[in-house]
Amino acid sequence: MYQISVKRIEQDLYDLSRFGYNENDQGVYRQGFSEADMQARHWLMEKMQQEGMTARLDGAANVIGRYENDTNRDKPAVMIGSHLDSVPAGGIFDGTLGVMAGLECVRVIRENAIDLSHPIEVVATSEEEGRFGGMLGSQAISGGITPDWLETAYDPSGETLKDAMARWDMDIHDVLHAYRHPDELKAFLELHIEQGPVLEARQIPIGVVDCISGVFKWVIHLRGKASHAGTAPMDMRSDAFMGAADFAHEIPRIIEEDGTDRSRLTIGRIELKPGFPHTIPGEAEFTIVGRDTCAEVMTNLANSCRRVLSAIARRHGLMFEYEEMSWLDPKSCDPDMVGLLKSKAEARGYKYLQMPSGAGHDTQFMTDITKAGLIFVPSVGGISHAPDEMTHWVDIEKGANLLLDAVLELAA
Amino acid sequence: MYQISVKRIEQDLYDLSRFGYNENDQGVYRQGFSEADMQARHWLMEKMQQEGMTARLDGAANVIGRYENDTNRDKPAVMIGSHLDSVPAGGIFDGTLGVMAGLECVRVIRENAIDLSHPIEVVATSEEEGRFGGMLGSQAISGGITPDWLETAYDPSGETLKDAMARWDMDIHDVLHAYRHPDELKAFLELHIEQGPVLEARQIPIGVVDCISGVFKWVIHLRGKASHAGTAPMDMRSDAFMGAADFAHEIPRIIEEDGTDRSRLTIGRIELKPGFPHTIPGEAEFTIVGRDTCAEVMTNLANSCRRVLSAIARRHGLMFEYEEMSWLDPKSCDPDMVGLLKSKAEARGYKYLQMPSGAGHDTQFMTDITKAGLIFVPSVGGISHAPDEMTHWVDIEKGANLLLDAVLELAA
Repeated sequence: MYQISVKRIEQDLYDLSRFGYNENDQGVYRQGFSEADMQARHWLMEKMQQEGMTARLDGAANVIGRYENDTNRDKPAVMIGSHLDSVPAGGIFDGTLGVMAGLECVRVIRENAIDLSHPIEVVATSEEEGRFGGMLGSQAISGGITPDWLETAYDPSGETLKDAMARWDMDIHDVLHAYRHPDELKAFLELHIEQGPVLEARQIPIGVVDCISGVFKWVIHLRGKASHAGTAPMDMRSDAFMGAADFAHEIPRIIEEDGTDRSRLTIGRIELKPGFPHTIPGEAEFTIVGRDTCAEVMTNLANSCRRVLSAIARRHGLMFEYEEMSWLDPKSCDPDMVGLLKSKAEARGYKYLQMPSGAGHDTQFMTDITKAGLIFVPSVGGISHAPDEMTHWVDIEKGANLLLDAVLELAA
Repeated sequence: MYQISVKRIEQDLYDLSRFGYNENDQGVYRQGFSEADMQARHWLMEKMQQEGMTARLDGAANVIGRYENDTNRDKPAVMIGSHLDSVPAGGIFDGTLGVMAGLECVRVIRENAIDLSHPIEVVATSEEEGRFGGMLGSQAISGGITPDWLETAYDPSGETLKDAMARWDMDIHDVLHAYRHPDELKAFLELHIEQGPVLEARQIPIGVVDCISGVFKWVIHLRGKASHAGTAPMDMRSDAFMGAADFAHEIPRIIEEDGTDRSRLTIGRIELKPGFPHTIPGEAEFTIVGRDTCAEVMTNLANSCRRVLSAIARRHGLMFEYEEMSWLDPKSCDPDMVGLLKSKAEARGYKYLQMPSGAGHDTQFMTDITKAGLIFVPSVGGISHAPDEMTHWVDIEKGANLLLDAVLELAA
């Protein structure tokens, strides 16, 4: 069995972390199309070229390094990678691990002069983290971007994608040229940190992802009557917060009755009006984000939320309105890829857990054009998107070896 | 029976409403020590003098009009009134009704040349609504102000009471000279709008207040762990909002077990951190305001809140801290005054409800130096502190007649 060098991955991740590193909070600030992000992309292209690959920036700012030879260049490529951008004050593993592990696979293949029937492409996707909505690079590759969206995308500061790309002499219309026809690819594999607590808690080094949760987001309004917190008796109130709290209290029951152990319902934001301690809240606006790996379960959860909210609104004398801000169906990883990853993990003697991904990943869009698989390694404390994001090097070694084994089989 | 003229009270309230009236929102902006407030005080002093009273501004900016004669001037006075200031965008009845009804009583007494054994004082207290904390005038009269507080009081804009008073050539040290010795007063009576929904809902025109609720305010912190709303399974979360919601859900039970029908527990403000829809809230900061007319019940409610919060925090894996920002004991109205008001209401054939006041009023401080009583008239929709604050003139007529009857008996 070939072995990746975790030392080289470690060195690469530290080198890469300098792009956008902030000494004050030790966070990485490498948001899509920032200067740090674009510098990192050019640094990566140079590294790829040093490893005998051709490297290019596609129309969506994805870095694509290709390792091929005269005999396999017309065959569909095995693509591996993840994203290079970070959230503000992010860590050094999220996304980057999958890119640098991909590059390490090529290094091992080249060092050992392994003969492959298919080219390998290492991809560093662009703007995965959401400055302009997220998953730009993988959606561009998989054909999920439309011209009208490109014209209207903007970031939280109000800057348009058009302007952000123009700063680097890029034209938004070229994003559509990043599309790859299914014939060009044989498979896609991504190695990523779990960003959750499950693998660490169960002391399992490898997650083989079979499904990426779908997600819906609602903004809910409950409207009652703001009144004096002293003069209004408890039974004469229309307290919007009490309605919201009663709904939150029902969430475990909603999941027990209509969900699965892969269901998630989260209230992350709430605003009360007027928001004074001595005034009964007349209005509560809050979000609910629902997830499951099965679209039908998501629908059942959403229906249950609506019923429970309606009943609670009636009970408290509130008006209930909601707006569905987004709905994204779950995506299944290819069963062949799941099987391949499981058998390769078993061959290495690695314990693994077949599991869903609760977070979104580039893989979910790649499933639209090719067989796609996703490997997780544990996140210490379940933490990500923060400077203390961390994965043990021994776990990274296992994840990268599994990636290598799968790539070798796919490209053999 | 003598009759007040509700027409004159109506005219006075409309005249008074011009001081600080805002045409854009129809609200009254007559915050304590504002130009509108001080103009209204001088307008009132002139009106008092026209009615044969002496009028003065005391050291706390209370307007005190005194109606006396040669035979009763050394006797303790019957004081009637309420406050003249308003909240921002307030209505035309809150406080002002008690002042103008007091003046109307004097008008009736004078017109009918009713011989009284005690002087009448009509008071328009200052800064009741809370620009600098509230109840300044009645606390000054009842001896509740200390020099250190005067030096440090400031309003939400940061202006000190010292500067606000200096603008009108007033010296904060003179506030302490507003104190009235108990020997100087025979009784205090206040007519006020209910600011709650009870009287209107029960179609009763008169509330005879027996007790003014005490109030405590806590700021509560629940601290858990912010994590990704997709990757953290429901049973591996420390969701601070779910803790807050579970607590809110228990409020009805807490009141059933440890409270009374006069108990109130209100969560008026909550802030979640980080407050993103896709992130489990790691921190919730919220207020709870508790009220009851019995100090022991307040203590029981507070203890119960603490126990429930501790248990919920343990269940959700949260840290629980709270800070008691304020605690004000309940105050009882004088039983003789309650009895007097009830018998006078019966004599007029007015339906009345003996009830607590859930809001604070000047009366609660006047109980420290004299027998004090408080009359409520209904608030349409329970609304106050808003331009659509409203009390029907027929109800005002009844309230003012009851005030007159009680004053005549007390001063006879």
